[in-house]
Amino acid sequence: MTLTPALTTQLKAWRRDFHKYAEPGWTEFRTTSAIIAVLRDLGWDTVYGPELHDADSRLGVPDAEVLAGERDRAVSQGADPELVEAMGDGFTGVLGMLETGRPGPVVCFRFDIDSNDLVELADETHRPFAEGFASANEGAMHGCGHDGHAAIGLGLATRLSQLKDELSGRVKIIFQPAEEGVRGAHSIVAAGWFDDVDLFVATHLKSDDEKGNVLTGSDGYLASTKLDVTFTGVGSHAGGDPEKGRNALLAAASATLNLHAIPRHSAGASRINVGTFHAGEGRNVVPRAATLRVETRGQSSKINEFMFERAQDVIAGAARMYDVDVESTVVGKADQESPSPELLPYIRTCFEGVDGVAEISDTGGLGGSEDATAMMKRVKERGGLATYVQIGMDTSWGHHTERFDVDEDMLAVGVEAEAKIALGAGEFLTGLGR
Amino acid sequence: MTLTPALTTQLKAWRRDFHKYAEPGWTEFRTTSAIIAVLRDLGWDTVYGPELHDADSRLGVPDAEVLAGERDRAVSQGADPELVEAMGDGFTGVLGMLETGRPGPVVCFRFDIDSNDLVELADETHRPFAEGFASANEGAMHGCGHDGHAAIGLGLATRLSQLKDELSGRVKIIFQPAEEGVRGAHSIVAAGWFDDVDLFVATHLKSDDEKGNVLTGSDGYLASTKLDVTFTGVGSHAGGDPEKGRNALLAAASATLNLHAIPRHSAGASRINVGTFHAGEGRNVVPRAATLRVETRGQSSKINEFMFERAQDVIAGAARMYDVDVESTVVGKADQESPSPELLPYIRTCFEGVDGVAEISDTGGLGGSEDATAMMKRVKERGGLATYVQIGMDTSWGHHTERFDVDEDMLAVGVEAEAKIALGAGEFLTGLGR
Amino acid sequence: MTLTPALTTQLKAWRRDFHKYAEPGWTEFRTTSAIIAVLRDLGWDTVYGPELHDADSRLGVPDAEVLAGERDRAVSQGADPELVEAMGDGFTGVLGMLETGRPGPVVCFRFDIDSNDLVELADETHRPFAEGFASANEGAMHGCGHDGHAAIGLGLATRLSQLKDELSGRVKIIFQPAEEGVRGAHSIVAAGWFDDVDLFVATHLKSDDEKGNVLTGSDGYLASTKLDVTFTGVGSHAGGDPEKGRNALLAAASATLNLHAIPRHSAGASRINVGTFHAGEGRNVVPRAATLRVETRGQSSKINEFMFERAQDVIAGAARMYDVDVESTVVGKADQESPSPELLPYIRTCFEGVDGVAEISDTGGLGGSEDATAMMKRVKERGGLATYVQIGMDTSWGHHTERFDVDEDMLAVGVEAEAKIALGAGEFLTGLGR
Amino acid sequence: MTLTPALTTQLKAWRRDFHKYAEPGWTEFRTTSAIIAVLRDLGWDTVYGPELHDADSRLGVPDAEVLAGERDRAVSQGADPELVEAMGDGFTGVLGMLETGRPGPVVCFRFDIDSNDLVELADETHRPFAEGFASANEGAMHGCGHDGHAAIGLGLATRLSQLKDELSGRVKIIFQPAEEGVRGAHSIVAAGWFDDVDLFVATHLKSDDEKGNVLTGSDGYLASTKLDVTFTGVGSHAGGDPEKGRNALLAAASATLNLHAIPRHSAGASRINVGTFHAGEGRNVVPRAATLRVETRGQSSKINEFMFERAQDVIAGAARMYDVDVESTVVGKADQESPSPELLPYIRTCFEGVDGVAEISDTGGLGGSEDATAMMKRVKERGGLATYVQIGMDTSWGHHTERFDVDEDMLAVGVEAEAKIALGAGEFLTGLGR
Repeated sequence: MTLTPALTTQLKAWRRDFHKYAEPGWTEFRTTSAIIAVLRDLGWDTVYGPELHDADSRLGVPDAEVLAGERDRAVSQGADPELVEAMGDGFTGVLGMLETGRPGPVVCFRFDIDSNDLVELADETHRPFAEGFASANEGAMHGCGHDGHAAIGLGLATRLSQLKDELSGRVKIIFQPAEEGVRGAHSIVAAGWFDDVDLFVATHLKSDDEKGNVLTGSDGYLASTKLDVTFTGVGSHAGGDPEKGRNALLAAASATLNLHAIPRHSAGASRINVGTFHAGEGRNVVPRAATLRVETRGQSSKINEFMFERAQDVIAGAARMYDVDVESTVVGKADQESPSPELLPYIRTCFEGVDGVAEISDTGGLGGSEDATAMMKRVKERGGLATYVQIGMDTSWGHHTERFDVDEDMLAVGVEAEAKIALGAGEFLTGLGR
Repeated sequence: MTLTPALTTQLKAWRRDFHKYAEPGWTEFRTTSAIIAVLRDLGWDTVYGPELHDADSRLGVPDAEVLAGERDRAVSQGADPELVEAMGDGFTGVLGMLETGRPGPVVCFRFDIDSNDLVELADETHRPFAEGFASANEGAMHGCGHDGHAAIGLGLATRLSQLKDELSGRVKIIFQPAEEGVRGAHSIVAAGWFDDVDLFVATHLKSDDEKGNVLTGSDGYLASTKLDVTFTGVGSHAGGDPEKGRNALLAAASATLNLHAIPRHSAGASRINVGTFHAGEGRNVVPRAATLRVETRGQSSKINEFMFERAQDVIAGAARMYDVDVESTVVGKADQESPSPELLPYIRTCFEGVDGVAEISDTGGLGGSEDATAMMKRVKERGGLATYVQIGMDTSWGHHTERFDVDEDMLAVGVEAEAKIALGAGEFLTGLGR
Repeated sequence: MTLTPALTTQLKAWRRDFHKYAEPGWTEFRTTSAIIAVLRDLGWDTVYGPELHDADSRLGVPDAEVLAGERDRAVSQGADPELVEAMGDGFTGVLGMLETGRPGPVVCFRFDIDSNDLVELADETHRPFAEGFASANEGAMHGCGHDGHAAIGLGLATRLSQLKDELSGRVKIIFQPAEEGVRGAHSIVAAGWFDDVDLFVATHLKSDDEKGNVLTGSDGYLASTKLDVTFTGVGSHAGGDPEKGRNALLAAASATLNLHAIPRHSAGASRINVGTFHAGEGRNVVPRAATLRVETRGQSSKINEFMFERAQDVIAGAARMYDVDVESTVVGKADQESPSPELLPYIRTCFEGVDGVAEISDTGGLGGSEDATAMMKRVKERGGLATYVQIGMDTSWGHHTERFDVDEDMLAVGVEAEAKIALGAGEFLTGLGR
Repeated sequence: MTLTPALTTQLKAWRRDFHKYAEPGWTEFRTTSAIIAVLRDLGWDTVYGPELHDADSRLGVPDAEVLAGERDRAVSQGADPELVEAMGDGFTGVLGMLETGRPGPVVCFRFDIDSNDLVELADETHRPFAEGFASANEGAMHGCGHDGHAAIGLGLATRLSQLKDELSGRVKIIFQPAEEGVRGAHSIVAAGWFDDVDLFVATHLKSDDEKGNVLTGSDGYLASTKLDVTFTGVGSHAGGDPEKGRNALLAAASATLNLHAIPRHSAGASRINVGTFHAGEGRNVVPRAATLRVETRGQSSKINEFMFERAQDVIAGAARMYDVDVESTVVGKADQESPSPELLPYIRTCFEGVDGVAEISDTGGLGGSEDATAMMKRVKERGGLATYVQIGMDTSWGHHTERFDVDEDMLAVGVEAEAKIALGAGEFLTGLGR
């Protein structure tokens, strides 16, 4: 059971196309459009646009003006105008569904499709630049491998179509928008698309590892909350009327220091970061406005909640100190969720023997955060099994850097192993008495 | 019109006695007792104890336990037990009144009598130590000359008794407690003792000046508010349970920095000082309590009010940040108040020709704060005239230092000139058409 | 002695032309080019380009790329390409000189010509917009009246050419670049152009006053230093490797709070402002870089120096705290300088009787800062007399606001009165025995 | 093998005697004196005074004046004056050695003997108060059970003397001073007394557990450094001369906030605590001095070192900010050290079957810090085995609280089990091939 050369070639082509037209979270109009086209060709059902999302649960959506510009850009880069129209104000992403008609479990795979806010390296040593598929969209770049993830998802759909007669139950493949900033999973979960899933697998390519190493149950993700905080005071001339100002910059500076001073938690790791700070109108003006981008994290959701609550105290207190207004908005959120232990031996079996796989381990992880945990949580709550798989690449660069590049050999590994997961899922689950 | 040698000698004896038994604000039990005894001997009426003060307007009174200890101490140092009993919980100070029975103005003089929180220098170069009248009360020392002021007050009473037949109207001499920390004037004013005053003079000896220089209208005092702030949180083991604490020390540190960052005021000078900071129970405990002693100042009462209000914001915000309680108490307060310009030429005349007087000027001052301004304010509101006189001493030490000492030659200067003020007040005021 | 209707009309035309092509400091290529053209037509000598400035003394010059863009923009808006070329990397501004050939004093006038960083109001209630001369350069706007100042300068040159036969000595009119941020005066002074000046007058239109009020000796300017501060640390992933970062944002936040906590000065007013704060690369990255725009001020140059030195301590300490590098650059600077008192009666005489002048007073001012003080200082050091004149406009808007507009009636007032100053200077100075 | 009733009774008597005469670290003159007396009676060799310690390695020793007072106090409470004299400036503690003359391992036990800085509860519900053995020394109290530890140590010495003929090798019992603040172990280790130890056991009674639960290998201790930091600036009058001060309080407040903002470490738990903050001389004085008591901790010694180094940066930076001097002294220090895993089964065997023992577990711990780790580290470096045993008490109070009390039933448990450890050590180590 290996892939056809045509499919292997196609995987690279998809990945490079997505790489070239990198689109940040909630603006994946062209990427989604391209994926829908493939799924339709394969005869899969597709769910997209507002149907895919619970509108009120979407986090960190850009404003309408930005979205309008991005829709135009997407169409100019080949997106289907009708589909773009249907996606409206950022209802990007798509769910592909294959109904076998035979009784069996609902197996679901998740691939994220958005790009990062990075300026891609323009240098001959960087393959995407050298071979002409570097990002055409200034400031947007696939620096986390989601271009590869999307390609694996399409490869998997193709492969499963080939194997359709051997499958039973239903397969869902979710192409998720806006994973960066942990924004895009919640509204899809809230719309109910994970309520019937029996077995769930999220997939990530991992740089800076041994090539072909596989982690069947990544459990190192931290719960996290992403917060935009804007202080608004009153400006005044710093020389002539200093006492008339209400200094938003000082409120933000004070908040920043005290946010970082939130105590450690005895139950496990915690994190706080004020990542960006922009304030002030001019050197000689008491600053009227200040904006912070903040994140909290915790080894458990409870620890993250502790960090978040204390952060709210600090932010409210800083505003009180300087008699300024403050608005604090949650723009992203991820729970901590562990893989189902009983699922991991099965995942291991499916990766074993796949060409290109080296060592397989069961636990470990990155220390970052992931909103696929929201999907895992829902699946587990409903009695299903869930895990998060990492496929290692031997690369010298890290994620979220300007020279990130995917090891395209690994795309086929993901497709093959995950096709096996889908094929054997019914028998595996029955064996567990489920 | 000069003083008798006996009175000159007595002035020094009084001053040294007060110096030796230095008593901080609201504990001047022995000092008050001694003053009452002299006034009674002179035949003056005396008002003291709760009658002298509006009880609710007293600021910064020590707690009952401290006062009880001080009462015992005072009696053991020779205070009249009955008088001490009458002064109860810190109702110290006394108002002496001389009723001439002849129509005329109410002329009032104010002398403060409390000591500072200083450990007096134990060194042969320091005259009080060398000559055996250094403070017997550890940690209490007359470092601002109030021992001298009290002596001038008694000298003035003595001299006016001698001149009684030449006087008309009524003379009031107020021996005020608790000037340090600007605490003691308000309750006496609130009790109404200044409501009938036509001409008011407060007096201060000024170190580090030319000997005998006189300032008839000190106008450099800043409005000020004194504030005790206590943050109360929750302690916890800093190693085992850091997240369970609510850190009062961090709240206080954050308040401190942001208090000092309150903006300058375009209308004039402002000040802020967190003078003391005491917090924490042990190195390995998240601190449960923190106490700050704070003061704000302003060149005008309005500027001081701005500082005070912003300070309240900062303090409330710091408590909110760390989810701790805070109690903030005003323990002292002084307005800015200017001398009556029309009074100054008269004061100048009275000092002219007095033996020991050098140059006389009309405006200037110290940059500190004074609660005699509350008396000046009330007198002026009621249509009277008021000023604040400084008598210069050529000393190398500053006020509030451990080696402060009074130039006793200046005591007689104050007595003589102010006796002249009382004597001529009726004619002067009539001349103004009052 | 009133202006011709043609000149009055021309004043408005010049002013509106400058207003429309607003140019920020060191990019006044078109404005300078237009001024040179007029001066040449009048037959004045002109000094411009590198000859006008001591290159090393220029402060706060934009980088080469910005300047290149602005040169292109200026030429496209009608500037003389040859002159623009001659001005090179921001050597803008021009000195016009009229040599009478007759013995007499050197009289110098200063007008500043740069615009502010403002987006002009696009609203029919705003005359420049309604009448079609609003700024064509987005983000640049004459919000401080320098368009009017430049017009007065050209009007004065025109008028003095008309009166050439009555003049003696030499007249200099300096059209100064980059007054905003107090950057442009120093390099002109350092080049020696003020070393021979006997009488110096700087001029400013003042909004929010009574129409036609004149202030002959504005003395309210504060000494000031403008500082750009950049902290550079080490970025790292805030979730995965927080300990590997060196946090430039926290260093900047800590610097900011402690800068504002620099103590007040007992000798007079002081100011500190961190006007802008920009830091960080992304929410989940420990911030590598942070930039602050800071200013200090003082009622005297000594107080400003105190603020500046303490600011340097705070900045160095903040960098030390977070083990990050810091670079701190002075980008602007103004001394405090008072008008020559003996000059003011003469200035008053010259304004008296000019049509449109209301009340004339001698002292007062704005509370801002001005680098014309550097010129005043040099002139006074060399034995000359100097002052700073304000001409009041009854407008409802303040300086540096998006709806600022000049009362064009006042342009002629300035021209007439200052022509009289030039005409009578010889006699006045002789009368003083100079 | 159970204890005699006499010994059981004596254990309580010893413990209560030590409790009554509680002595803080480096002042255990009476306690040491009493222990030496018992050891001498048993015929053990004793090492004490300067011979026991490497003088330069002692941390956090009180000053000479305090020690002199404590020596007098100890003698007045029954200490042997000769021994107290020998202990000089705080060379407290004693090492008892029993030489069997038979070949065999060196087995060492450690008991700490110092008290805490607590005011003991004066309440009938508190047994020490009710039964008359509450601390006679105000502010000193055995709130961590070291009174019980010392009693176990003497009981063990007594029991081993009874069993002397069955023992081989050498037994060392170290009665360590100054464990609170992790100060006392280092100088004993540095003096070489642990260089020959083959098997080491430290013992602690643990409150708030199930009665009789035993932990054979407490591994939860954090590495820690204790730091006293004193900032020294320049005082000045806050109203009159604010600019002349160099504000030590603000430097300390800024240090405090930024110390708490030191980043988390990805390799494990870290801690920081500014536990106490004392600063300032008076409300109206710019504070001249400020003192902080600080501690850092880390799950590994490397993490603690990271915290300590960053803390040094912050402290130096804060001093630089305010142009004040700073002195930072290490007054305590503990490494992280894990028990030897191969030793734990043996310890378990020795506790099994002892009357009063409930459940036995092998790992866990408190989250605090311990300087016995320095002893464990040295023993392991030299090839020996080491562990830290906890014996549970079912008490409602926590360690370091004013109502702490020892469950005296547990004293015999420690003596019996540890006597077994000494008896079987030779055989056990031989079995391991050592």
